[in-house]
Amino acid sequence: MGLTLTEKIIKEHLVVGEMIRGTEIGIRIDNTLTQDSTGTMAYLQFEAMDVPKVKTKKSIAYIDHNMLQTGPENMDDHIYIQTVAKKHGIIFSKPGNGICHQVNIERFGKPGETLLGSDSHTPTGGGIGMLAIGAGGLDVAVAMAGGEYYITMPEIVKVELKGKLQPGVTSKDIILEVLKRFTVKGGINRVFEYVGEGVKSLSVPDRATITNMGAELGATTSIFPSDEETKLFLKAQKREDDFIPLNADVDAIYDEETVIDLGQLVPMAAAPHSPDNIKPIDELEGMKINQVAIGSCTNSSLYDLMKVASILEGNTVAEEVSLVISPGSKQVLNMLAENGSLAKMIDAGARILECGCGPCIGMGQSPNTKGISLRTFNRNFKGRSGTTDADVYLVSPEVAAISAIHGVITNPVGKVGEAVAGVEVAKEFKVHDNMFVVPAEEGEEVEVIKGPNIKPFPKTEKLKDSIHKNVLIVVEDNITTDHIMPSNAKLLPYRSNIPYLSDYCLTPCDPEFPARAKEQDGGIIVAGHNYGQGSSREHAALAPLYLGIKAVIAKSFARIHKNNLINNGILPLIFKDEKDYDSLNLRDRLSLDNVLAGVEAKELIVKNETTGKEIKVVLDITDRQKEMILAGGLINMMKENV
Amino acid sequence: MGLTLTEKIIKEHLVVGEMIRGTEIGIRIDNTLTQDSTGTMAYLQFEAMDVPKVKTKKSIAYIDHNMLQTGPENMDDHIYIQTVAKKHGIIFSKPGNGICHQVNIERFGKPGETLLGSDSHTPTGGGIGMLAIGAGGLDVAVAMAGGEYYITMPEIVKVELKGKLQPGVTSKDIILEVLKRFTVKGGINRVFEYVGEGVKSLSVPDRATITNMGAELGATTSIFPSDEETKLFLKAQKREDDFIPLNADVDAIYDEETVIDLGQLVPMAAAPHSPDNIKPIDELEGMKINQVAIGSCTNSSLYDLMKVASILEGNTVAEEVSLVISPGSKQVLNMLAENGSLAKMIDAGARILECGCGPCIGMGQSPNTKGISLRTFNRNFKGRSGTTDADVYLVSPEVAAISAIHGVITNPVGKVGEAVAGVEVAKEFKVHDNMFVVPAEEGEEVEVIKGPNIKPFPKTEKLKDSIHKNVLIVVEDNITTDHIMPSNAKLLPYRSNIPYLSDYCLTPCDPEFPARAKEQDGGIIVAGHNYGQGSSREHAALAPLYLGIKAVIAKSFARIHKNNLINNGILPLIFKDEKDYDSLNLRDRLSLDNVLAGVEAKELIVKNETTGKEIKVVLDITDRQKEMILAGGLINMMKENV
Repeated sequence: MGLTLTEKIIKEHLVVGEMIRGTEIGIRIDNTLTQDSTGTMAYLQFEAMDVPKVKTKKSIAYIDHNMLQTGPENMDDHIYIQTVAKKHGIIFSKPGNGICHQVNIERFGKPGETLLGSDSHTPTGGGIGMLAIGAGGLDVAVAMAGGEYYITMPEIVKVELKGKLQPGVTSKDIILEVLKRFTVKGGINRVFEYVGEGVKSLSVPDRATITNMGAELGATTSIFPSDEETKLFLKAQKREDDFIPLNADVDAIYDEETVIDLGQLVPMAAAPHSPDNIKPIDELEGMKINQVAIGSCTNSSLYDLMKVASILEGNTVAEEVSLVISPGSKQVLNMLAENGSLAKMIDAGARILECGCGPCIGMGQSPNTKGISLRTFNRNFKGRSGTTDADVYLVSPEVAAISAIHGVITNPVGKVGEAVAGVEVAKEFKVHDNMFVVPAEEGEEVEVIKGPNIKPFPKTEKLKDSIHKNVLIVVEDNITTDHIMPSNAKLLPYRSNIPYLSDYCLTPCDPEFPARAKEQDGGIIVAGHNYGQGSSREHAALAPLYLGIKAVIAKSFARIHKNNLINNGILPLIFKDEKDYDSLNLRDRLSLDNVLAGVEAKELIVKNETTGKEIKVVLDITDRQKEMILAGGLINMMKENV
Repeated sequence: MGLTLTEKIIKEHLVVGEMIRGTEIGIRIDNTLTQDSTGTMAYLQFEAMDVPKVKTKKSIAYIDHNMLQTGPENMDDHIYIQTVAKKHGIIFSKPGNGICHQVNIERFGKPGETLLGSDSHTPTGGGIGMLAIGAGGLDVAVAMAGGEYYITMPEIVKVELKGKLQPGVTSKDIILEVLKRFTVKGGINRVFEYVGEGVKSLSVPDRATITNMGAELGATTSIFPSDEETKLFLKAQKREDDFIPLNADVDAIYDEETVIDLGQLVPMAAAPHSPDNIKPIDELEGMKINQVAIGSCTNSSLYDLMKVASILEGNTVAEEVSLVISPGSKQVLNMLAENGSLAKMIDAGARILECGCGPCIGMGQSPNTKGISLRTFNRNFKGRSGTTDADVYLVSPEVAAISAIHGVITNPVGKVGEAVAGVEVAKEFKVHDNMFVVPAEEGEEVEVIKGPNIKPFPKTEKLKDSIHKNVLIVVEDNITTDHIMPSNAKLLPYRSNIPYLSDYCLTPCDPEFPARAKEQDGGIIVAGHNYGQGSSREHAALAPLYLGIKAVIAKSFARIHKNNLINNGILPLIFKDEKDYDSLNLRDRLSLDNVLAGVEAKELIVKNETTGKEIKVVLDITDRQKEMILAGGLINMMKENV
């Protein structure tokens, strides 16, 4: 029986379990990456494990989130990460070197290897044929220490691409189409494998846009084959030796299949406030815009920005529009500067930002009040831009560039064909890796420098047999990690300071939540479907932990967030009958008795003391996760095992 | 009798008074500029005057301070300024177009004309032979409405430059030498006029560095003649018609003279925490640095950055240093991008920031805790960088660039000569003014858009005959406007919201000050010499006004701040005997009776009810200012006159 590409890589890396859908497996991690906003915590955890040197093939610590530096906190974090990396065998990528996913695919991505990253867009690496998965920082710390990474053996979805995109339609529109078909919860415990003739017409940067934004499906990851295009890209990066061809077997068996005729696609946008709220550009055409932002790990490759420069050339950004462009990496920026493309952008009136995540994570460039912002990014959750009442539309670089000139949303088809026709992926990239800092030969001699804002992470305790706590909040479906632990320019500098952050936990849903949690000495969160979708930040578990949250009862959970809850000893309980959601109200007193036996059985009774009603909840966890919950989280379990 | 250059321009613009040193004169203002952090308030005040169209030759509204946009406030302010400018005949410079002083000298500066700007570094324009003065936003609003601007007829200091700078020594070192000689209070009510053979060897950008940082002397302004260099610069900017030759008469009489032999100068630095704490670089050589920041209105010209690029070429920024470069304008950035210099900087590992004030005003790039930051800026006040305990050294671009490579403070003499030898001021600048928005033909049709963060400015009231208030704070010498109204990345977005800002008033001196002022319903500030030095921000008067401050009793005042206090009806009282400063303590109850007569006589008695001691204070104000104080500020006086 043939194997999918995903199965082939998993098979090569399988350490625990069998490749049976829905069961837990442990895989060996070849490479890790961290970014700074999750990285500080991950390295604090790694340090707690007392491992002198990482056991991965390669581990890279990037700085791309907290680069505004509006106080000493950011640079203190950079220096902490730089020194801890140097000590423990980790390559450090200096601020300004670029966005982790863009740089990683340029300089380190290797077909057939595994990559675990403390950022939800780690699947970008699937564009170059890696099995690249986003995880919490603690999981990445464990992988750096040589531990395997556990996932549910995913279903594999075959996305067959046919035909060829028409000019002005891009790979961004492919992933928007997939999001339209599958929605933001359609990818849970699934890998999306792209196959078919249409794949050949997509460059590695095109593919990376798709695998990157595949994260918005809630998928475990997305992956493309490693083929001639991959080889050309690696060769252009002077890494031809890293190439191996990789493909699914022709008789591979998929769990679901969907076919996309590329020739039929039109330019689209994800309208506010969800990446799956897809509309054709034609429906939005003529809408007045205030801001256009081009960049982010989704669309900041040289290839993307060369097209943008070509569209902007000789034009001027509309009077009432602010156009900002943040190139994905030093390599991209350097090449744009060398080949004249950057000058074209500047000449047209674009504002050039640093190579980093920037506006995508609300790290600057928040739009005006009630503003309309067109962005080439991957997320448009309410408030993520830093402006609560702004409307963010996610589009391709082509739509963004042509709309910036016209001042209104504009369909690029028929307008940009000539400009982008000549733009191809570079045959040879400029390779000058002087913003990487290599690890010390003798790590012991390196002093790790910790600024005053770097606080220890909260301690967990063994699971108790009974929990008597109040419902502290009831939230709806699709609550994102941005709701649970807001991530904006004002809060991101405190990613290594959980006590400070916890005062903002769930405040977008209810500003009183942190105060209530403290006053009632913790409690229980009640949620709808897909709770915790979005980023991989474990702060969305650490802040509730600090506030004394013992359990979240939800209709369903997003994958990474559920793992983060378990890692930190918080019960992720699922309604057996989701109608029971309606029976729980704010401040209801809930009793969970015989919790230990219930966790063993993976089913518990929750008694609502306020209404008298009893409801059943289940735990969708593996036996390993069960042990972790009983121990009160991963670090406790590791300690027990020692 | 011959005239100084300053007198010639004043004579041409004199509307009120006579050119007698120490007396008040009113001069006609040809041009105004505002930046965004003082501009929102200035335009609110201008709107209150009900003047449909500015009466100046040219008024420009720049956006250069609040460009990080970590919330909707910044872009809301940009849109307010853009629309109010369009309505009232003001040219708008879009965010990204550059720092006001750099852009103004490139595109608008005109020898012999007057320029009033709501930014303390407006004297930059003196580099091109303008009489360019920094003022509060309200003064600029009055000038836009056609009113004259009042100053004390200044003393004129002749700075004679002899000889020629050795390679590696720059115009930055000239102004550091002047600061060493005259200190931060040596320029009060003085204009510094640069003359002599040495002037010829300085380009317009060189001169602008000197006149810019002349603001740190507390001077009214600084000025260079308009000569062949000026003509070349204007021609290169395609503005040859704006040139006129201008010079002091040979028999001009100066109030003081100083001679600088350029050939004897060495590279210097202003050490923490004052621009006049000058040390030769040799004394600091070898000091480990964490950050280097190149840019700001002092040193971000094309000429400066071409030298930086040349020094960086083929080198790599030291591993433990973060180098950030913020070009001064779109023109600079565009030309650097076109001629390959930007690529050299990027290649070396520099982080390229937007064209704006950026780190100079703590708007990002704060150094690490206790970090050492080398900056080509003009101010190193404690905490201004956003990091309270960081040490900031002010240096030339040459010192900055070579030190960034070495990782320690490095003397450029003998090291950069070859690199910078070929760098000259451009013979032809790229002129593409597409980031300016021209005013509407029919202003009435333009809708002014005000975001929710834009609050009305506090109202003043007629002066009362008796004041019985407590001393709310006693502060030392050289308190800056950064102490009075901190200006950092977190507060700058609230420049149009005085109630919010007032909670931070004087908190660097005493965190309890705002609460105490509110609790005691206002009171009196006691200060040492040179109170209010630094920026032109009238928020340093508006926030105290909002908190109910009735008077400041000081040993002496910085010029712009004193005017701002008077404009807002706060008494700027000066100890007749400065020893009395020591007799006043926090919470002393002070009584001022017969205030109206006292103001008429410009001398008052302050009775300290707590100690029983009586002290004399004087008012160093003109008759016009006396009327203003009696009326309770400029806007009230204007209303009375109507």
